[in-house]
Amino acid sequence: MSKIGFIGLGIMGCPMAQHLQAGGHQLFVLKHRSALPQELLDGGAVTCTSAKEVAQKADIIIAIVPDTPQVEQVLFGADGVAAGVSSGKLFIDMSSISPIETKAFAARMNALGCEYLDAPVSGGEVGAKAATLTIMVGGPQTAFDRAKPLFQLMGKNITLVGESNGAGQTCKVANQIIVALNIEAVGEALLFASKAGVDPARVREALMGGFANSKILEVHGERMIKRTFDPGFRIGLHQKDLNIALSGARALGISLPNTANAQELFNACQGHGLGDQDHSAMVRALEIMANHEIK
Amino acid sequence: MSKIGFIGLGIMGCPMAQHLQAGGHQLFVLKHRSALPQELLDGGAVTCTSAKEVAQKADIIIAIVPDTPQVEQVLFGADGVAAGVSSGKLFIDMSSISPIETKAFAARMNALGCEYLDAPVSGGEVGAKAATLTIMVGGPQTAFDRAKPLFQLMGKNITLVGESNGAGQTCKVANQIIVALNIEAVGEALLFASKAGVDPARVREALMGGFANSKILEVHGERMIKRTFDPGFRIGLHQKDLNIALSGARALGISLPNTANAQELFNACQGHGLGDQDHSAMVRALEIMANHEIK
Repeated sequence: MSKIGFIGLGIMGCPMAQHLQAGGHQLFVLKHRSALPQELLDGGAVTCTSAKEVAQKADIIIAIVPDTPQVEQVLFGADGVAAGVSSGKLFIDMSSISPIETKAFAARMNALGCEYLDAPVSGGEVGAKAATLTIMVGGPQTAFDRAKPLFQLMGKNITLVGESNGAGQTCKVANQIIVALNIEAVGEALLFASKAGVDPARVREALMGGFANSKILEVHGERMIKRTFDPGFRIGLHQKDLNIALSGARALGISLPNTANAQELFNACQGHGLGDQDHSAMVRALEIMANHEIK
Repeated sequence: MSKIGFIGLGIMGCPMAQHLQAGGHQLFVLKHRSALPQELLDGGAVTCTSAKEVAQKADIIIAIVPDTPQVEQVLFGADGVAAGVSSGKLFIDMSSISPIETKAFAARMNALGCEYLDAPVSGGEVGAKAATLTIMVGGPQTAFDRAKPLFQLMGKNITLVGESNGAGQTCKVANQIIVALNIEAVGEALLFASKAGVDPARVREALMGGFANSKILEVHGERMIKRTFDPGFRIGLHQKDLNIALSGARALGISLPNTANAQELFNACQGHGLGDQDHSAMVRALEIMANHEIK
């Protein structure tokens, strides 16, 4: 039984925290503006009034919040985690944020005697609820070994991508690049077929099982054909992730031309009020340019 | 037993013709500048001196040649197929060419009483030899039914994509768009990871089985990491296919921004003398821009 602080009880964090509690761990959670989930309180979660207090009372502190500035706030804001940690504690950031900032955050926490893991996830709300998340981890092997039993309560495909902090976030960026570009690939291909007068559903079926096959062709290809763009994973969140990719690319001095294009299509979706639709709705931007809807 | 004309005994056509002959069919082949494969001659293939003669002697004429102009030459050039066909014959184009030109070719052949199928393949030399090609067919159901026993000798995943000519070629274009863009997706993602100091092999493993997974991540991701760029499918051929996609897009009035980018990367590969390498070597263009090689 570990004492676990859990900061960020959103759509992802709430079921993840429940799995930890169900696994027999004592949770310390942060008082929210909105009401805390009753199941967690009934299960014995202790409410704290600051991230500092969470860090003082728990041995391992997990955060899963929207973006880089929120992680910075949790760690180094007023009454943040950094103010409450002491030697031997472990901070695990399961948010999806900048790999470059992650290195800096980890160095500052290490200087306080606190171990750091970056451990972003993929699999979405469905994976969080089913405890089948993919967890991509960066940080020291010893910290990974310490955290692994907790990861196994929340996910299935758990990889220590590298022993330097940022490796997990870098892997998540790679994941989001591929997913976005594969969505655009399927979108451009099905749009071409549809505009040429060919049934996109038959094209998808003919291509599945061949060299063009992908998880995205299977899942999002069907979404594009059936016009089911309710999320899923929202365009606004994928924009945030591609922003991390593109600002990272600028910092690293590399060129990601198709990632940049995909982000522009997401921007166009926002311009058409589609930011809350599933990221497969990227195809809508291609359709608007083509003045043709896939059918 | 059918009388089958087979025009284009190249890397793909030769094993395909052999499977038809092994299936008990009588082949009529075109005299070449280079020597004809001895196995075909030993098996009883009849040599003709023109495509016209092939069309006169065979009931079903199959062609698999490099590009649109070669199909036009085979059909409508001096002593071409069109000069030799009579009512009731069937022409099957298994080349990968323009879907728009295909419609025009089919209309001209239909006017001569000759049925037409466009039936491009994917699966490459390996699929041709193993008779496991994916065959994407456009044309009338009756013609498809007539040709199906022949397709089954050469391939496995055989789909009548649409009953209009050009549907098979359109599906092949969609295939080539997705494959090219998935290659770029994996290339951009692994380059990002490598430049950020993370082992791309571990990233690939972490992402396989998740939402970023694709046939290209599995096969070409490994090629990029192991630096095995011997073909495979040559960049020069994929450029030809993306040219069909982009000129088709212009004719149809649709915009394919990532397909255009991918073609530019292939162009850059040509500029660096990489046109005969496998299409996964598209990542080399990204690497050259980044002044960093994946490792």
